[in-house]
Amino acid sequence: MINFQTSPDQYHHWKLTVEGPVANLSMDVQEDETLAEGYKLKLNSYDLGVDIELADAVQRIRFEHPEVKVVVITSLKPRIFCAGANIYMLGTSSHAFKVNFCKFTNETRCAIEDDSHHSGRRYVAALNGTASGGGYELAIACDEIYLVDDGNSAVSLPEVPLLGVLPGTGGLTRLVDKRKIRRDRADVFSTLAEGLKGKRAKEWGLIDDSFPTSKFQESIDARVRAIVEQTVSLRNGSGTAGLNDNEPPQTDSLLYGIKLNPLAVDVKPAGLEYKYVNVVLNREQRYADLTVQGPAANLPTTPDLRTEGNIDDVLAVDKTLMANKDHWLVREIILYMARVLRRLDLTAKSFFAIVEPGSCFVGNLLELMLASDRSYMLNSTDDSVKIEPVEIAVSELNAGALPMSNGLTRLQSRFLAEPDTLRYIFEVDGSFNTEDAEEIGLVTFAPDDLDWEDEIRVAIEERTSLSPDALTGMEASLRFAGPETMDTKIYGRLTAWQNWIFQRPNAVGEKGALTNYGKPTQAQFDFKRT
Amino acid sequence: MINFQTSPDQYHHWKLTVEGPVANLSMDVQEDETLAEGYKLKLNSYDLGVDIELADAVQRIRFEHPEVKVVVITSLKPRIFCAGANIYMLGTSSHAFKVNFCKFTNETRCAIEDDSHHSGRRYVAALNGTASGGGYELAIACDEIYLVDDGNSAVSLPEVPLLGVLPGTGGLTRLVDKRKIRRDRADVFSTLAEGLKGKRAKEWGLIDDSFPTSKFQESIDARVRAIVEQTVSLRNGSGTAGLNDNEPPQTDSLLYGIKLNPLAVDVKPAGLEYKYVNVVLNREQRYADLTVQGPAANLPTTPDLRTEGNIDDVLAVDKTLMANKDHWLVREIILYMARVLRRLDLTAKSFFAIVEPGSCFVGNLLELMLASDRSYMLNSTDDSVKIEPVEIAVSELNAGALPMSNGLTRLQSRFLAEPDTLRYIFEVDGSFNTEDAEEIGLVTFAPDDLDWEDEIRVAIEERTSLSPDALTGMEASLRFAGPETMDTKIYGRLTAWQNWIFQRPNAVGEKGALTNYGKPTQAQFDFKRT
Repeated sequence: MINFQTSPDQYHHWKLTVEGPVANLSMDVQEDETLAEGYKLKLNSYDLGVDIELADAVQRIRFEHPEVKVVVITSLKPRIFCAGANIYMLGTSSHAFKVNFCKFTNETRCAIEDDSHHSGRRYVAALNGTASGGGYELAIACDEIYLVDDGNSAVSLPEVPLLGVLPGTGGLTRLVDKRKIRRDRADVFSTLAEGLKGKRAKEWGLIDDSFPTSKFQESIDARVRAIVEQTVSLRNGSGTAGLNDNEPPQTDSLLYGIKLNPLAVDVKPAGLEYKYVNVVLNREQRYADLTVQGPAANLPTTPDLRTEGNIDDVLAVDKTLMANKDHWLVREIILYMARVLRRLDLTAKSFFAIVEPGSCFVGNLLELMLASDRSYMLNSTDDSVKIEPVEIAVSELNAGALPMSNGLTRLQSRFLAEPDTLRYIFEVDGSFNTEDAEEIGLVTFAPDDLDWEDEIRVAIEERTSLSPDALTGMEASLRFAGPETMDTKIYGRLTAWQNWIFQRPNAVGEKGALTNYGKPTQAQFDFKRT
Repeated sequence: MINFQTSPDQYHHWKLTVEGPVANLSMDVQEDETLAEGYKLKLNSYDLGVDIELADAVQRIRFEHPEVKVVVITSLKPRIFCAGANIYMLGTSSHAFKVNFCKFTNETRCAIEDDSHHSGRRYVAALNGTASGGGYELAIACDEIYLVDDGNSAVSLPEVPLLGVLPGTGGLTRLVDKRKIRRDRADVFSTLAEGLKGKRAKEWGLIDDSFPTSKFQESIDARVRAIVEQTVSLRNGSGTAGLNDNEPPQTDSLLYGIKLNPLAVDVKPAGLEYKYVNVVLNREQRYADLTVQGPAANLPTTPDLRTEGNIDDVLAVDKTLMANKDHWLVREIILYMARVLRRLDLTAKSFFAIVEPGSCFVGNLLELMLASDRSYMLNSTDDSVKIEPVEIAVSELNAGALPMSNGLTRLQSRFLAEPDTLRYIFEVDGSFNTEDAEEIGLVTFAPDDLDWEDEIRVAIEERTSLSPDALTGMEASLRFAGPETMDTKIYGRLTAWQNWIFQRPNAVGEKGALTNYGKPTQAQFDFKRT
C-alpha cells in the first residue's frame, strides 16, 4: 500500500526552509529513492513519491506557516529545474496507476492555485535550469515564472512530439486558459520537443521574465522582496493573506501555525480505521462502507457513505467556523474541507449515501450526501422502531464555502432547475425529516423499513455489475452540470483524453512512443485520425 | 465513399410533409436499406444513412420552407418511436467510424437546436412509442417531448447498463444541462435499461407530458396549434421566426424559400473538385490541400487551407449579408456558415492556413484562417515578385455572427489576453499586410520568400510525423480556450470519453458488452475503475 504520510524531516526529494515571510521549496530528487522498482529518477524527474512530498509541503506551509507570504519553488540541481514525470516509471505502470498518478499530481497543482487564489500566498517558480513536461506544468501552476538565461535552459512540453501522449497535469489547459497564450503559439510550443528559451518564451508569455545566470538569484530575491512588501499591505487591506488587524486575540499557536501530526490509522484486513473515518472493504462484492463520525460524538460503529453523530454538534461546529471564517486557521480548515469534498466529486467510484437513524448528514457533512451519485434515506413508518429521528439539515457552510470544481455549491448544482427550492431550503429553520427531504428533492429514494435493506442491497448489486468504464464516463458527465472552469476542464480532459491516449497502441503498444522512449527503436504510428 | 447528398424524394427512412406552418418529419426506417452490409435496421434503429436523411430534412426545412414554424418529429411504426443507433452496425464498425458516426449525428441534433435557438422554429418530439438510446437523444434535442401513455412505451438511455458505453449523442449532458434533471435522478435513469414510462418520466422532467393512446394525436395537434399561434405573434414581434413586416420587398422565392440543388462535384483520383472548393489529396504525405474560392472570382487553381479571390468582393458580400441580416434567408445563410466553421473547429485534423499572393482570407473567409491551428503568411521582401499584395482583413461578420461552439468569436478566443488588440483590429480601416498581421498577432509565422516553401514543407512533414491520437487530444484542448457551453461539453466528452470507452475491452473486447449484445453469451467485465 502506498504511504501518503510524510513530513519535512522525512523528505527525500525536497528541502523546505522557512525564513520569515518566505518559504523556499527546493527540488533535489534522489534518483534511487523511488516508490517502485525498475527506474531511476534522473534529472529531477518525479514519481508519485516525489509528488506526495510536494503535496505535504504545500499543506504544511498553509497550516504550519501562516506567516509565509511567498513560496519560491526551485531546484538544487545545476542546469535542471525538473524533467517532469519519469517516463520509465510511466512505461512500467498499469493504465489505472498512470491515470491515478496524474490525478494526484493535478490535485497538488490545484492546491497551489487554491492557496494562491483563496489565501493570497504567491508562488514563484525560479527555474534555474530547464523545466520540461511536468516540470513546466509545475511552474505554470505558480503565479510567476522566471527562467535562467544561460544559453541552454528552456521550458517545454515535449509529451506530444516525444511520447505521443498529452501533458498530464493540466499543461495544455493552463497554456491557453490561465496564461491565455494564443492557440497557434500554444500549438507550436506543444509540438516542439526542445521548447523555447528565455527571450522567445517571454515574448510568447510562457514565462514572466528571464535573467542571466550571474544575476538570477539576486533578481529572484528582489522580486520576492517586492511581493512580500506588496503582500504586507494586502494583508492589512482585504485580509486575503495572513492575519487581519481586527481579528480576535489569539494564542501563539493560532498566530504562528499549528502542527499537523500524523494521522492515526489502524490497517486491518477488512479495511481502515481512522479516528473519525472507518472504511470496511467488501472485496468480493466490490464495494466499501465508508463511515464518517461527526464531531464530539461517541457512538458505536455500524456499516456506501454513512455519517454518524449528533446533528446539533455538527451545526455548532459549522456555526463556529462561519463566525470565525476570516481567521487564517478557520479559513484554511474550510478550504481544506472544500478540497477533500472536491476530491470525492472527482473520484472514479460510485458513491451512494445512506441516511438512517444515527446519521448526521447536516451542514458540512451534508456535502458528503450531496456529493454522492444517489442517496437513500430511511422512511421509518414503524413507530416502535423509530427510536432516533432520521433527519438532515443545512448550515451556512452549504451556501458557498464548499464549492465544487465548477464554482457552484452542490445544492446549486442539484437544484439548477429549481432556484426557488434552493432558497426555501435555506429559509427552513431546523432539519428535514425523510418525507420532507424526499418531497423537496434532497434525497433520491426514501424506502420504508420493510424495503430498506433489500433496496440498498439490490442497488449495490446492480451498480457493481455495470461496466466500470461506462460508469466512470457517466458519473463524470452527470456530476458537473452547469458552468465549466479551468479545474473541471483539466480533470475532464485528463480522465477522458488521457484515459484514451494512454490506452492506444500509438502510445503503449509494442511500437508505441511511450514504449520505445529511450530505446534505439523508434515509435511507429497508425496514422489514422479519430 | 459515403454519399451525403439526398433529397426528400430519395429518402428511404423519413417522410417529410409540409402543411403551411407545420412540418411533419416521420421516421419509418426500412430495415434492409442499410448503408453497409451485415445488419438490419429493426425497430426504427438507425445507421449513418438514416441520419444523413434527417440532417438533410432539417436543412431543407430551414432553406426551402421558411414558412414552417413547428416541426413534429414522430414515427410511422406502431409502438416504437426509435430504438437508437443500430447496435450491430456499431459492433461491426471500426473505432474511427464509430466516433465519426457519433460526431455526425451530434451535428444533426445541434443543428435542430441551432434552428430552434436562432431561427425560432419549434421542434416537437411526438413519441408514439418507446424512444430508447439515440431515439431519446433525438427527442431531447427537441424543444418539447410528448410520450404516448399506452402502458408500455417508455423513454430510456440503456447504453450504460446494456452496452457498457455512453449515450453517444449528448444524452447525458442534455439530461443535466438542458433539461436540468437532478443528477441523482439522471444517474438512476441512465442505469435503468427499461427506462421510465409516462407518469414518472414526466415527474422527473424527462418528458413534458404524456397522453393516452386514444388522445395522443389530438393532444399533439392541439399543442402544435398553440405553438403556431404563439409563433405567429412572435414573427410579428421580435422577428426571430420567419418574415418581418419591415423587410424590404422580395421576390416569391425569397419569400417562400429557395431550392437547395445538388452540389456538383467532380471526384478525381487526386481529390475532389467542387465549384468553390478544391481538395487535393497528398495521400503518401498524409495531407490535403484545401482551397476555397472567394465569390465572383475566376482565378487559376494553385495548391493545407487556402483561399483565393478578390478581397473587395468578399468584403462586399459580407457587407450585403450584414445589411440584410434580419431577412430570413440571409439569417439562414449566416447561421449555416457558422455551422460549417464550427465543424472545422471540431474536426480531428490539423489545419494550417497558407496566406500568399492571391489569397483572400478576409471577412467570413478569414474565419478559415482563425479556425486553423497555425497560419503562415508570406512576407515578400522581393519587390519584383510582389505582384499581388498579401493581405488579410476583417469585416463585421468577424465580430459575432460566426461564433465558435463556446460562444466566443475566433478573434475573441485568439486575443483572450489582449482585449485592446481585439478592439484595435476592428478600428483599422482597411487590410493588414504581412508585417502588420504578424506584429499584432493575427498570424503565427511570416516567412520570407526564401524560406517560404521550405518552412511550410518542413512544418507539414513534422506535423504528419506526430502521434495522431496525441494531436487529436492536443488540438481539442487548445482550440477552446475560455468558457464551455453545452455544445463544447457534448463534443469534448464525446470525442474523449467515447473514444476511450469504445476502445476498452469491457466494450469491444471478446467478452465486452458491445460484442456480446444480442448473443446468448454475456459480457464479462474487468471491474477495475479508472
